[in-house]
Amino acid sequence: MAQFMDVHHGMVGITADQLRQAHQADLDIEQDEGVHFVKAWADPQSGMVYCLAEAPSAEAVQRVHERAGHKADEIHPVPLTV
Amino acid sequence: MAQFMDVHHGMVGITADQLRQAHQADLDIEQDEGVHFVKAWADPQSGMVYCLAEAPSAEAVQRVHERAGHKADEIHPVPLTV
Repeated sequence: MAQFMDVHHGMVGITADQLRQAHQADLDIEQDEGVHFVKAWADPQSGMVYCLAEAPSAEAVQRVHERAGHKADEIHPVPLTV
Repeated sequence: MAQFMDVHHGMVGITADQLRQAHQADLDIEQDEGVHFVKAWADPQSGMVYCLAEAPSAEAVQRVHERAGHKADEIHPVPLTV
């Protein structure tokens, strides 16, 4: 399964609860697309959120995020990891 | 220790070896700044590289990256994780 890093902009002021709820909304439906959201990191000050996912495609990642109500602004495959 | 996500643009065509060498160059000197680079992900096609670090400040992360020869284009604190 390939790994993807997606980025959300504009989440200024996001709280720990909001991040947890958004991540849970992804987890609740991710199986429909064969995706697994591994981890997410957020910066409430700049409004950047980064999500790491295992997925069959970037499109599958986006479909989950869209249905969960938070479309990603960028999705990049990250085939190299260290 | 705070966590930071930094981003490098323009690394189009980066190979697994180059990513590993760049990461090792950070690891070799990170203790001078009290930084630890936890993980890095790269997309050779778009040239995006994401690095997760534990560090006392964004400036400390940047000093390590600069000395290692690969200044980051963005560094964001990521106080929220899920």
